[in-house]
Amino acid sequence: MTSPATTSSFIVGSGADWAAAIESDDELEAIETDALVNNGESVGQFWGGGTSLPMRQRKSQQQRSTVTVGVADVDLTGGQDGAEHQYADFDTIDWLRDIGRHRRRNREVQRRRRVNYRGRLAAAFDSVSGWLCVGLIAVAAGLVAGVVDIGTNWMSDLRSGICVEAFWFNKEQCCWSANDTGFDDEQACAQWYTWAELVGNKNKDAGAYILRYVLYVFWSLLFALLAAMLVRMFAPYACGSGIPEIKTILSGFIIRGYLGKWTLLIKSVGIMLSVSSGLSLGKEGPMVHMASCCGNIIAHLFPKYGRNEAKKREVLSAAAAAGVSIAFGAPLGGVLFSLEEASYYFPLKTLWRSFFCSMVAASVLKLVNPFGNDHLVLFYIEYNSTWSVLEIGPFILLGIVGGVFGAAFIRANVWVCRQRKFGRLGQFPVAEVLAVTCVTALLAFPNPYTRMNTSQLIKLLFSKCGPEDVNELCDYKRNTTNDFSGSAPAGPGIYSAMWKLLLAFGFKIIVTIFTFGIKVPSGLFIPSLAVGAIAGRVLGNLLEQVAVSNMEAFPFRLFCRVGQPCINSGLYAMIGAAAALGGVTRMTLSLVAIMLELTGGLQYIVPLMIAAVTSKCVGEAITKHGIYEEHVRLNGYPFLDNKDEFTHTTIAADIMRPRPGEPALKLLYQDSMTVEAVERLLTNSDVNGFPIVVSEHSHYLVGFVTKQELALAIEYSRKHEDGIVSESLVYFTERLTHGGDARRSDQPPELKLRRVVDLSPITVTDQTPMEVVLEMFRKLGLRQTLVTHNGRLLGIITRKDVLRHIEYLHNIDPHNLLFN
Amino acid sequence: MTSPATTSSFIVGSGADWAAAIESDDELEAIETDALVNNGESVGQFWGGGTSLPMRQRKSQQQRSTVTVGVADVDLTGGQDGAEHQYADFDTIDWLRDIGRHRRRNREVQRRRRVNYRGRLAAAFDSVSGWLCVGLIAVAAGLVAGVVDIGTNWMSDLRSGICVEAFWFNKEQCCWSANDTGFDDEQACAQWYTWAELVGNKNKDAGAYILRYVLYVFWSLLFALLAAMLVRMFAPYACGSGIPEIKTILSGFIIRGYLGKWTLLIKSVGIMLSVSSGLSLGKEGPMVHMASCCGNIIAHLFPKYGRNEAKKREVLSAAAAAGVSIAFGAPLGGVLFSLEEASYYFPLKTLWRSFFCSMVAASVLKLVNPFGNDHLVLFYIEYNSTWSVLEIGPFILLGIVGGVFGAAFIRANVWVCRQRKFGRLGQFPVAEVLAVTCVTALLAFPNPYTRMNTSQLIKLLFSKCGPEDVNELCDYKRNTTNDFSGSAPAGPGIYSAMWKLLLAFGFKIIVTIFTFGIKVPSGLFIPSLAVGAIAGRVLGNLLEQVAVSNMEAFPFRLFCRVGQPCINSGLYAMIGAAAALGGVTRMTLSLVAIMLELTGGLQYIVPLMIAAVTSKCVGEAITKHGIYEEHVRLNGYPFLDNKDEFTHTTIAADIMRPRPGEPALKLLYQDSMTVEAVERLLTNSDVNGFPIVVSEHSHYLVGFVTKQELALAIEYSRKHEDGIVSESLVYFTERLTHGGDARRSDQPPELKLRRVVDLSPITVTDQTPMEVVLEMFRKLGLRQTLVTHNGRLLGIITRKDVLRHIEYLHNIDPHNLLFN
Repeated sequence: MTSPATTSSFIVGSGADWAAAIESDDELEAIETDALVNNGESVGQFWGGGTSLPMRQRKSQQQRSTVTVGVADVDLTGGQDGAEHQYADFDTIDWLRDIGRHRRRNREVQRRRRVNYRGRLAAAFDSVSGWLCVGLIAVAAGLVAGVVDIGTNWMSDLRSGICVEAFWFNKEQCCWSANDTGFDDEQACAQWYTWAELVGNKNKDAGAYILRYVLYVFWSLLFALLAAMLVRMFAPYACGSGIPEIKTILSGFIIRGYLGKWTLLIKSVGIMLSVSSGLSLGKEGPMVHMASCCGNIIAHLFPKYGRNEAKKREVLSAAAAAGVSIAFGAPLGGVLFSLEEASYYFPLKTLWRSFFCSMVAASVLKLVNPFGNDHLVLFYIEYNSTWSVLEIGPFILLGIVGGVFGAAFIRANVWVCRQRKFGRLGQFPVAEVLAVTCVTALLAFPNPYTRMNTSQLIKLLFSKCGPEDVNELCDYKRNTTNDFSGSAPAGPGIYSAMWKLLLAFGFKIIVTIFTFGIKVPSGLFIPSLAVGAIAGRVLGNLLEQVAVSNMEAFPFRLFCRVGQPCINSGLYAMIGAAAALGGVTRMTLSLVAIMLELTGGLQYIVPLMIAAVTSKCVGEAITKHGIYEEHVRLNGYPFLDNKDEFTHTTIAADIMRPRPGEPALKLLYQDSMTVEAVERLLTNSDVNGFPIVVSEHSHYLVGFVTKQELALAIEYSRKHEDGIVSESLVYFTERLTHGGDARRSDQPPELKLRRVVDLSPITVTDQTPMEVVLEMFRKLGLRQTLVTHNGRLLGIITRKDVLRHIEYLHNIDPHNLLFN
Repeated sequence: MTSPATTSSFIVGSGADWAAAIESDDELEAIETDALVNNGESVGQFWGGGTSLPMRQRKSQQQRSTVTVGVADVDLTGGQDGAEHQYADFDTIDWLRDIGRHRRRNREVQRRRRVNYRGRLAAAFDSVSGWLCVGLIAVAAGLVAGVVDIGTNWMSDLRSGICVEAFWFNKEQCCWSANDTGFDDEQACAQWYTWAELVGNKNKDAGAYILRYVLYVFWSLLFALLAAMLVRMFAPYACGSGIPEIKTILSGFIIRGYLGKWTLLIKSVGIMLSVSSGLSLGKEGPMVHMASCCGNIIAHLFPKYGRNEAKKREVLSAAAAAGVSIAFGAPLGGVLFSLEEASYYFPLKTLWRSFFCSMVAASVLKLVNPFGNDHLVLFYIEYNSTWSVLEIGPFILLGIVGGVFGAAFIRANVWVCRQRKFGRLGQFPVAEVLAVTCVTALLAFPNPYTRMNTSQLIKLLFSKCGPEDVNELCDYKRNTTNDFSGSAPAGPGIYSAMWKLLLAFGFKIIVTIFTFGIKVPSGLFIPSLAVGAIAGRVLGNLLEQVAVSNMEAFPFRLFCRVGQPCINSGLYAMIGAAAALGGVTRMTLSLVAIMLELTGGLQYIVPLMIAAVTSKCVGEAITKHGIYEEHVRLNGYPFLDNKDEFTHTTIAADIMRPRPGEPALKLLYQDSMTVEAVERLLTNSDVNGFPIVVSEHSHYLVGFVTKQELALAIEYSRKHEDGIVSESLVYFTERLTHGGDARRSDQPPELKLRRVVDLSPITVTDQTPMEVVLEMFRKLGLRQTLVTHNGRLLGIITRKDVLRHIEYLHNIDPHNLLFN
């Protein structure tokens, strides 16, 4: 047995020394500077183009930027951006290794702190930089949200007309500044001119209707075209909701440019346009994407986060929380969304950061006050009635409806998206956007419930009928004995509204299936809420009428009194909305929190919970995954879902490579290879790293080295160490097993590479059940693990092997995935 | 290299076969039955006594019950309770191993499902049993909470008097049934007789005051004495809040009897008594403990959970969520409390279960309706004012006050508890309870704010002054021009109330420091909230008066208008309460959720968040850990905190045993030991298990076997396999390295024990940084890991080694902890 007396300080020491050696070198500095300058240019292209950069250029950049990798481990200046490119595009990250780098960096900070005043200052800054970073992200996200909210309001109103006095006012501001408060959707105030009025047509006849219809379709098409063109030309990654990709990125995948400046800019402008175009989509999902973009951009100001992909994901989790916080004015819901839906690793520290980020973002948005109503609650409800335990029945029914809707929607939407991805449909994205917009606009205009803004529709459906409400939905037959607090028989308006709502229900479902996935920024929350709210409102009104007619019968006599409100159809709309959103996204806790914060209906927490649980269970019985997971699978991202349970009986030996019949693994021997042999191995293999074993005949595992670091170290040594030639032996360990000390004098000096070797690779035995391997991959964030038997190396399992295996067991074509 | 062609089905097959072999054996069944019967008796004693059972009896029970361990892996009948004793008391559990057992059990269920109809039925039941289990827990917890709430109300009122018509009514019900609604604390209704009235003293003179004073103290002492005696005699584990212990249990520690029937019963009765005794404590913490007891008891009905400690912790996490849900009527807060504070492993599945459990528990409590007010919100607030961004300053101030209070409280309370634990004070627990009660009662009576129930005090402090409020706190100088919605100058009542509140503030802090930790059931939430609410209310009133006097000055002119409410002192009380609770417990997310659900003040979410974050930061700057972690440390539980960051540079080689100079590890050799040698090893060692290596001269790691299973397997084979004698060789693997096939005929048959060997032990190399080792222990829930170098076994690290190392690095006496 060998002695375990080696102290760890050696590792740190050697790393730092090496870095210092590199840092002091002129030529390398030149290369670094080159990488930096080149980087400054290329980043814009990356962000702008995403996939448009030619492969060769990208490769060469990676090559060049890898030169700084070794330095990045301990570099604190923040000047070079090289480290961010330590992973290639579409690569998976190695959390353990990145956390190790973070740890070494932290120790270097602590060491410098003891040295001088500047070091102390830097350490102090470093220790608050996490909070500072998420704080800045929150401020940025809040401001972006404020701008988008204001812009969307203005642009949506632009579709109906313009404020002639001050064109930058939206309709509400225009009429408010004109002190003309008595307006609704149909009846404009004096300052606000509809387009029809501007062209001189002030009549209310059929011609005016047609003119308004044509203009409605025209503006829709114009906005949609603009949005689609912007996305196509400047930032292809700005389309869709972005949540599936953010899930994937947070799980440890690299999609370069997905969270860049250009994506943020184009998504912000695009979402205003696409919402204003009247398409069946919301701006809430994209807000999460935009907040994550802010997170990524601001993380780059802090080398601690910007240059360490694992640490960056901590602030991105917080940014995702801020995204929901600003989208719904739901700070608590945001944190829970990040926890339940978006994030992969969510330790308590990230929870607190997210909480802080969410809070600051909500405060900033409250300051900006984009809706001008001084509180963040979007669909504020004020019911003064409570709910009866007997109403749990209909709430469960709504949960079932929501679950079935969600599952059906997911299936249909995935089918459509698959056609788009693999069929000819996907080749004409802009034409598709225009077609969907055209159909939507043509069908939406005649029905007032689809013509109006979806947010307004939801607000209307959630609301209770008060004495001052004159819309169709509140057309009750009231007489003097029935005051407004009690339930009453329905008037003709309600019957008419019900029919229109049912039509709107079908319309919304169908167009949303086709809309979610087209190449404009589009979210799914608001359309889902709208569909559910319609179903809930219809059911609520139905039950109310049954109750009014059978007030004395069972079960209504148990909780209804004449002259008192009996069934609150607004509450049913709210529960239905929650159920539909739950069915589509399969959120539970975060859904309830978001609904509570959206409506302020804290006393309805239990009904909301019932709807969420029911719709999740029903939905999962039909399709197993939520819409985001399905889109992740559709796009073939290597996302190792931590919600799935693995129930198969395979073991590590079944999955590891080399498979039986495949060529053996390429190995390094700890002290018996020449520089030339190692270089040949480097040239002839395309793997990410090599295991190191004792010798050719003794495959006991010693360690692991990544290809990148090995190549860099050999290149450096060849140039700067005396006497290193192709025949030099390479030593990967300190201890020499066969006569290293009695080296013959005619041999060249050996090349010592222990500093780049990971002497603590994670290993499993060949008999380890796959569930345990999976647990280790998920919980430790591994990129690969080595498989041993009695200490001897047998093979390797990478994250992509695991994913391929899971897909294989699910009987799905394993080549569908994006394995590079 | 050996071939990795072994399939995993072998493992399952062999395990099942072995179990079947055991199951079919008469003698073992007899032993099992014996264990079962004995268990039925002993469980009561365990639950009742906790630590009172003699060591020998306990040992023998463990010995006997270990016999069923092997069977439990695949046993589905649920008849035997043996498996629950697979860990000894004060043992740490091995999550990976338990999850492995669960997996094998699942496969056996699936296998039987394919066999016959009964198997299908069993599988169907098995798949819903998780939800059913948490559902039943929720119902039980809801009912217990209802009984405790009703009981506490009745008993608290009993202290002041009795309902002569129906003694089982509390004051409110008594007066309500008598249709006499105009009553307050001082003025009783006709049916309600105070004790003074009952003895014939109806005057309001000094004598009556003294009589009431004496009776108040008398009842306090009586209730406290009863509570302390019950705890001391029947269930020592019922004292305190229970949350530190539940945290420890959920982190994977065994405290037998802590969550038993007797603890539940005594805690339920004891908390009613101790709350009624007027001590400065709340019933919310103990409710978490009671709900966890329900969880443990009901989990035993489901073998899937009751017999697998790792799976049981999943339902216990859900039960803890239900506990907070019923304590505060806060289902969302409950889930977040379980996530943030109580639980250790909280995967999404547990999140959803907790959510469901929380929801059902809240619904049941709503049905029971113990407060008779038809909604769950305890301290319902109705402010119609919003808050100004400028008020963030005072909110942060309240956060600082809360943080300082929390840290000071923790230090003082831990100091007192340390005296109690190690000094002479702890030897007279009942006397101590009586002394604290006596002082509390004597000091509390003269001040109306301390005399009243703490919950009522909080409610009063949170409330806004309306026109109908006549108490001191609402004594404003109003004239006709100042209507009640606006702020007004304070009258003499408010000044008097402020002085009394300041006295109450000091009094509450001091008595709570001495109260938390005495041997009665006691929670900390309500006293903390009360302290913070007092501070907040005083600050709010102060600011309000400053604002009223300086309405036109900066900064008040920015948000105050004459005739409109300016500073809402009730809101300040609420923020102060949140800050104080946050300072003591260091919760953030769950704190905000609980406060929201307690008060319904959804528009104040951002102020609440600000207070929570500030108080946490300030508190942590003074004392690092919250009160529960400090109590965990004080009691020396082996709790591996997952909030701490490990920043030292030690590596696995520094921690592992054997240390330099210690005797070598006891090892097993895979195919070269006789039965006798193995038995000698078993007898002479007190470790939990043995690593298996290739041979005496080749320490390459093969696997790991637990002492328990090895002993059991040898005992079984000795009795039931032909020809196994002391000289038989023991084979721990299938493959034989030196001539196993060419066995000489005079050798006895070998004993094959591969089935009990864990061929996939988790290993790390000696160079692995301790942070990585710690990550693996925390995230994978390891009990031990083996340390290797180039495949050779060097040593072992157990969870307690890790804890000892952390404590050592913290420069704290490592022998303080409960390492057995």
